[in-house]
Order: sequence, then C-alpha cells, then structure tokens
Amino acid sequence: MRRLAIGIDIGGTNTKFGFADRQGNVFYNNRIQTTGHKDFEAYFKELTGELNKTIDEHEKDTEIVGIGVGAPNANLFTGTISNAANLPWKQTIPIADLLEKEFNAKCIITNDANAAAIGEMVYGGAVGMNDFIVITLGTGLGSGIVANGKIINGHDGYAAELGHVTVKYAGRQCGCGRKGCLETYVSATGIRRTVYKLLADSTEPSTLRGISFNELSTETISEAALEGDPVALESFDYTARILGQSLANTCAHTSPEAIFVFGGLAKAGDLIMEPTKIYMEENLYPFYKGNVKLIPSKLPDENAPILGASSLIWNYRNN
Amino acid sequence: MRRLAIGIDIGGTNTKFGFADRQGNVFYNNRIQTTGHKDFEAYFKELTGELNKTIDEHEKDTEIVGIGVGAPNANLFTGTISNAANLPWKQTIPIADLLEKEFNAKCIITNDANAAAIGEMVYGGAVGMNDFIVITLGTGLGSGIVANGKIINGHDGYAAELGHVTVKYAGRQCGCGRKGCLETYVSATGIRRTVYKLLADSTEPSTLRGISFNELSTETISEAALEGDPVALESFDYTARILGQSLANTCAHTSPEAIFVFGGLAKAGDLIMEPTKIYMEENLYPFYKGNVKLIPSKLPDENAPILGASSLIWNYRNN
Repeated sequence: MRRLAIGIDIGGTNTKFGFADRQGNVFYNNRIQTTGHKDFEAYFKELTGELNKTIDEHEKDTEIVGIGVGAPNANLFTGTISNAANLPWKQTIPIADLLEKEFNAKCIITNDANAAAIGEMVYGGAVGMNDFIVITLGTGLGSGIVANGKIINGHDGYAAELGHVTVKYAGRQCGCGRKGCLETYVSATGIRRTVYKLLADSTEPSTLRGISFNELSTETISEAALEGDPVALESFDYTARILGQSLANTCAHTSPEAIFVFGGLAKAGDLIMEPTKIYMEENLYPFYKGNVKLIPSKLPDENAPILGASSLIWNYRNN
Repeated sequence: MRRLAIGIDIGGTNTKFGFADRQGNVFYNNRIQTTGHKDFEAYFKELTGELNKTIDEHEKDTEIVGIGVGAPNANLFTGTISNAANLPWKQTIPIADLLEKEFNAKCIITNDANAAAIGEMVYGGAVGMNDFIVITLGTGLGSGIVANGKIINGHDGYAAELGHVTVKYAGRQCGCGRKGCLETYVSATGIRRTVYKLLADSTEPSTLRGISFNELSTETISEAALEGDPVALESFDYTARILGQSLANTCAHTSPEAIFVFGGLAKAGDLIMEPTKIYMEENLYPFYKGNVKLIPSKLPDENAPILGASSLIWNYRNN
C-alpha cells in the first residue's frame, strides 16, 4: 500500500495537481485551467472530478494521507482563500473544508511561497535545517520564512510578505497600492521595469530598444546580457543590488543558515545569483558575514508546486 | 519552600542581579559595577560572592531553580559572551559553564534584548501571545522576536539585530562599522544626532542650541519638545518616521500581534509612541493595517533587566 499526499497548486492560469510520496516522487500529475469556469463550484467540480478519477483507478494500492494546497492568499489558520488578486473568485472560499468533505482526509492550505519553503524542508535543500528562507521570483516576489524548524505564519497567517518590504519610499507603484515595494524591482516584472527605466535614462545602444514592454521577458534580457548588452547587464546588476541589500536586512531579523531562490528570474542563474551574493555580503551585519548561503532551490522545477503543496501534509504528520 | 530563579543582567556600567519567582516578584535585588576589576576572574568572584551570601542567608526556605543571564553578545547556543564592545573583557567568556559549576544549577544566557522579550512573554504584556516583538531603545536599539511562541535565535544564536537594519545607504556611521543602521537614528544616541543635524540644517531658534552634544539627553529633548521647541519636536517626528517605516518592514517578516517598546527613549511616551504608530500604519502592507499593536513594555522599569534574565529559566522549564 503506497501512502500518498495529494498536492494542489492553484495559480492564476493553471491548477497543477499530483500525488507525492514521502520521498518526493510524484505520480499522476496533471493540470486544469484555473480560469474559464462559470463560477467556483464549476471549477471545484472539474478539479475533484479529475482527482477522483485518478483515485478510483489506483485505490487498491493507494492510501491518501491528506491534501495540501498552495494558493495565493491562502490562509493556514482559516483554511480559506480570500481577496486573491490573481484568482477569478472574489469571495472567501473555504477550500480546506470543501476538500476535506470531498475526500474524507485532512486538508492543509497555505500560500504558495510558504508551501515552497515547506517543500524545500521536506524534500529539497533545507532537509535538516531549522532556520532558512525561500524566496520565489515570479511575476511577483513571494517568500516563506522558517525559524526554529517551523514556518512563520504570524499572528494572522499572513507573515513573510518580503515582496512588500519597502525599499524605496516614493518608489515604483506596486499592485498592493503602496510605492517602492521590493517586488516592483525584484521579480520578472520588476526587471522589465528596470530595463525600461535604463533605456529611458541612458543613450546606450541596446538590442532591447527593439522590444516592447509586453514582449520583454526575463529570457530575452538574459540572452541580451550573455551577449554583452550593457543595458541588460546593468538591469541584472541593479536588480541584484536591491535584492542583496534587502536580504541583508532580512538576515538581521531571523539570521538564516540559507536563503533559497526559486522561480523564473532565478533561472537567469549566475547573472542574478552571483551579484546578489556580493551585494548581500557587502551589506550584512558583521556577525553574519560569510555565514549565510544564497543558493538555488533544490526542488525539481517541473514538480515543485505539487511537491510544495503535498509537503504540507508530510510536515504536519511529522509534527 | 520558595522556588526562585536568579536573574543577572550584565550591562556596560552595572551588573544587576536578583531572585525572581514564577509570578515576577523580585527579591534581594542588588548590583555591582561591571567595570573596575583587575580581570574577569576578579569580577566573577565579586558577583558570585554577593549571590552566595544571599543564598546562604535564605537557604532554608529557598530552592534555586536556575540562573538566567542577559548580556550584550551573549549566545544561547554556546553559553558564551564574546566580542562585546561595551564590556571590559575582550576574550570569549564561558559564563554559563562557570555559573553552572558555581551554583550547581541550570544556567541559560542570551542577549539582553532577547531576555527582555522572554521577560515580556513570561511576566509582562505578551503573556499568551505567540507572535510579538520587543524593541529596547537605549544607547542603541536592541530587539527580540518571538514567532510560534519561541524566541528566534537564528542558526547561529545572533538573530534579531533590528538595530542594524540599514535604513539609509551612505547614512550615519554606526559602531558596527557600517553606515545607516536603524540605531544610528532611533536610540537615545540617534535622537541626539538628529537634534544636532536639525540645528545645523535650520536657523530655527531653539533652547537646544545652548547644550553641548555630550550634555544633551533624551530628557532634555523631551522637556524642550513639551515646551514647544520646534527643533525638539521635529527631532521626535524624524525619529518616529524612521522607526515607523522600519517597523512596517519588520511586520512584513513575522506579522506580529504586538510590538512592545522598552527603554530610555520609550519613556518620552506620546512624543515618540504616537507619531511612530501613525508612520507605521501609513507604511504597513494593507493586510496588516490596523492589526499590529504598538505598546510600551509592561515590565516594571526598575526590575525589568532582572526579570528578563530570570524569565529564561521559567520559559525553559515550561518548554
């Protein structure tokens, strides 16, 4: 009898799901669209329909230990998703209760970045670590903070919003309504904004002058940088400086053993990781210098969201 | 038989000590000078001599449960004090081992701000809270962060150095060797520096123009502010703005239920607390707005250092 945890990652475009064992092997992974349904009930029916089909096919040799869900604005304490700017449902969704009823198994939900952090602890590079941080660089900047071996949820379930640390007062407009948030500089969107600022400020020739803001991507900027484009190179340096400075301040909070970086922008590899390390070290409080590792996530790219979500169940069962 | 924990607070000038019960009643409190001894051994002999005298006088009705020590740069994990800029001994002192041998009782040490945070949790305003922060405003700015009901020590025992969050790159020189640390603006020393900067920048008449930097104190600045002195008033506003902005960023890390403020500058009361609240609220990520209390410490002033230190024992025994 295999013991498997269901992992569900609800993103703005797709909902990915699969079944993971304690060792991090993922089975029957699949996806449905998050958008395009009449209402939440129609979405939920499609999602549970797909999951039930898989369960029915394998029920003889499989025990479902629980269901973990990672989603934007998901709250561990209440089991609900509410006010998620990137999801189609604006009401408060009691998704943990609904899934527990459907599958008669424990359901734990949290936001996607916290799920990534617990995934790193259960299956990835943070196995055995008690104090570390995961930052996810996608459209925005998400984060999960682990201290004393536990994820920090805060008193309200909404801790670890490092993307919304203010790095420049009167800086760039953020989707949260404020200005100068870290994620307006450090994210796939942030680096595109930086490229456009540099193109505006300088007269440097750049291949990026031929690309519209909407078409510009991290990959395009990376390729230009690898070919020596000065604007592309400077945009990585600018992004790395702001990230390195901000992470140094974060270290002054929880003094982590390591900071794991995950997501689209992190794939730019040495272009972003190496200068970020240098800027972070330069800005660290002397006691911390040389003692904080900045490393890429060790979760496999393809299944990371499902692993993050399913890890909530294994982490809970261990505690 | 009374069960008492010894609390020892080692400060740059004085070492305060006393015996506290689980309810926070302090007995036989006393102090010796931290400085003026030939070496650490001579200091330790005087300290333990005083403590043993008290124990001998009361041994019939008293059980010593343990010894808690709060000191700058004290490390919970190693039980040592090392590189403390404000203490006379520059070598690494294994003070926990030495005290355990002397008194045959458990000894726990941590830095003074972490001790203040645990004191707040055991005896003060944070009883029953799982997520809160204490900041101590003295010569510098110290802090202790509690999440999930536990103090955050980080992987190395040196977490929660909020006084060394960088708030202005290329800002004021800090004792730590870097520039722009929070405590160069927000502390008893920081507000004096701000007064001098404002006196330099403006032509406003101010009673503070008659006072040397060395003679200037938080009390003097408070008195001037209460009499309407524009420079004194602006210095509080400036200090509160930087503190409020920085605390808003700290909330994006651990989402605390409350932030307790303790120490000399906090005694300026509404002059500092009210504007800090306003600036913090203005800068909070929308999810946190209205949900973080900023309040004075509830530990009694006189015995707070002894209570903080002794609370380490009661907190440990509970866990």
